[in-house]
Amino acid sequence: MHEPILDLALNGEQRAIGRLISYVENNGKEATEIMKKIYRRTGKAHVIGLTGSPGAGKSTMIACLINLFKAENKKVAVIAIDPTSPFTGGSILGDRVRMQEHVLNPNVFIRSMATRSYLGGISKETKNAVLILDACGYDVVIIETVGVGQTEIDIVKIADTVCLVLAPNMGDDVQIMKAGVMEIADVFIVNKSDLDGSTKMASILHGMLNILEKRTWNPKVSLVSSLNNTGFEEVKKIFLEHQKFIKTTKSGKEKRYIRQKEEIKLIFNEMLKTLIESNFKERINNEIIEDIINRKIDPYSVAETLINEIIK
Amino acid sequence: MHEPILDLALNGEQRAIGRLISYVENNGKEATEIMKKIYRRTGKAHVIGLTGSPGAGKSTMIACLINLFKAENKKVAVIAIDPTSPFTGGSILGDRVRMQEHVLNPNVFIRSMATRSYLGGISKETKNAVLILDACGYDVVIIETVGVGQTEIDIVKIADTVCLVLAPNMGDDVQIMKAGVMEIADVFIVNKSDLDGSTKMASILHGMLNILEKRTWNPKVSLVSSLNNTGFEEVKKIFLEHQKFIKTTKSGKEKRYIRQKEEIKLIFNEMLKTLIESNFKERINNEIIEDIINRKIDPYSVAETLINEIIK
Repeated sequence: MHEPILDLALNGEQRAIGRLISYVENNGKEATEIMKKIYRRTGKAHVIGLTGSPGAGKSTMIACLINLFKAENKKVAVIAIDPTSPFTGGSILGDRVRMQEHVLNPNVFIRSMATRSYLGGISKETKNAVLILDACGYDVVIIETVGVGQTEIDIVKIADTVCLVLAPNMGDDVQIMKAGVMEIADVFIVNKSDLDGSTKMASILHGMLNILEKRTWNPKVSLVSSLNNTGFEEVKKIFLEHQKFIKTTKSGKEKRYIRQKEEIKLIFNEMLKTLIESNFKERINNEIIEDIINRKIDPYSVAETLINEIIK
Repeated sequence: MHEPILDLALNGEQRAIGRLISYVENNGKEATEIMKKIYRRTGKAHVIGLTGSPGAGKSTMIACLINLFKAENKKVAVIAIDPTSPFTGGSILGDRVRMQEHVLNPNVFIRSMATRSYLGGISKETKNAVLILDACGYDVVIIETVGVGQTEIDIVKIADTVCLVLAPNMGDDVQIMKAGVMEIADVFIVNKSDLDGSTKMASILHGMLNILEKRTWNPKVSLVSSLNNTGFEEVKKIFLEHQKFIKTTKSGKEKRYIRQKEEIKLIFNEMLKTLIESNFKERINNEIIEDIINRKIDPYSVAETLINEIIK
């Protein structure tokens, strides 16, 4: 990569940032060198994970959030790894057009990312993109994921603040009772407050949160209407409160510590995987596989031998 | 584990087999020793992967298949890793009762397995269970998975014959056009032949298979009604034909070779993961993480150092 791109990106030049993210996505070995260089500049952005069922209105909500941050002269980046998101080209044209206005704003960066892992799970690529955007001066990085199963849990690994977006009359009232979901969200945003059932949904949420074990951060419930652009001042207040909680309180710091540990584990595993795959290719030859097929040896013993050869 | 359990299991004693599978599931280190012992006895069973959307009627179909094999005095085992399957307790009582008759038969073994990976993906535990059932004398091992995304692809790694179960009027006609699905199935079973639309679905399938690149095994399409227990003689014939194809033809053997390679890779990766996790725990201490949080060092350099310390 030409050094100027890195410099331009770190100076906030949008096209260079886009190219930098692509470059890191596609160049394994050199990516590490770039990430090493930029890492010390990271840690400033507020990373917000937005998860929820398709149709809950996540992307319209993001449009509202972008406006909110723009009004404060904050720089906002959105990474959409939800395959059904209009950002990633999965939805109706109307939605896409609605986003278009932001695309042209120099303080707003929008990126859709391929989901290399299953159904929008968090990949190394996403993690790296968040760090790059952070280093390049974005104050807020919003990650949009589709809220099913593993993703809801994985978003915790890279977001400071996890928001679960819900909408009434979508079966989401059942969804929220699913084990695991209640536990990870810091903020519950009930969208479509203009519709019947949203208030009831919010009170069910309040009720369930009361039953749950008390935590140092008590998850907040907020009612908004993305359609009418109402309720977002409240959401902004909650975001600021949660950001302060993470940065200043003991348990907020503990949470960050755990995330940092997950981050290094992710990086470590990825590096090791690359290394091992080349080793595996080299050492597991046709003869060994033939012997396993003919049951002359077993793959467990073969794997043990291979590991003893690689590991000190 | 008491040696007698292993001996009893290898002699076909059902309760012992169940306990052996549980034991291997729960005891990492010792599991390897057991798997080493039994591995040479494996490779005889016909492993059939049955995948398809919830509601396509997979479990009712399995009941029919069990009857089919029973009539030939074959021993059949079913591993259900579909969370929506009645075998795993996810469905209506009626289905469960229908299966009950088989549970009491000494030639039929039914096991539901927890899905440790996302949405019924193939785990090491499933792989080991298949090998155990094979070693313990089951002629046929059926693996039931819910057919979404990764699972459909992963089933190829452990099944000799991959069946995609489809039903009309379920949106499955769209489903089958999805990239990746057509390519991996050896047999397409259209269920509910008693319903309108099933014949049309079968002919769409035939049409699409004609467009696809010709392979040495031309996937078969079969129409059955699990409800009326019709069409299964044809399915049995296809199974036998495909089993013969795998065992005797050049490309069948190639397929088996690739699977064997995947198997050892899976085993190798699992072993390595265990090893790495303990190493990581030992070497990544609070101080290092604090330094990363304070951006004194970057996690990429830390990971590199760690790898250099572990790898020869």
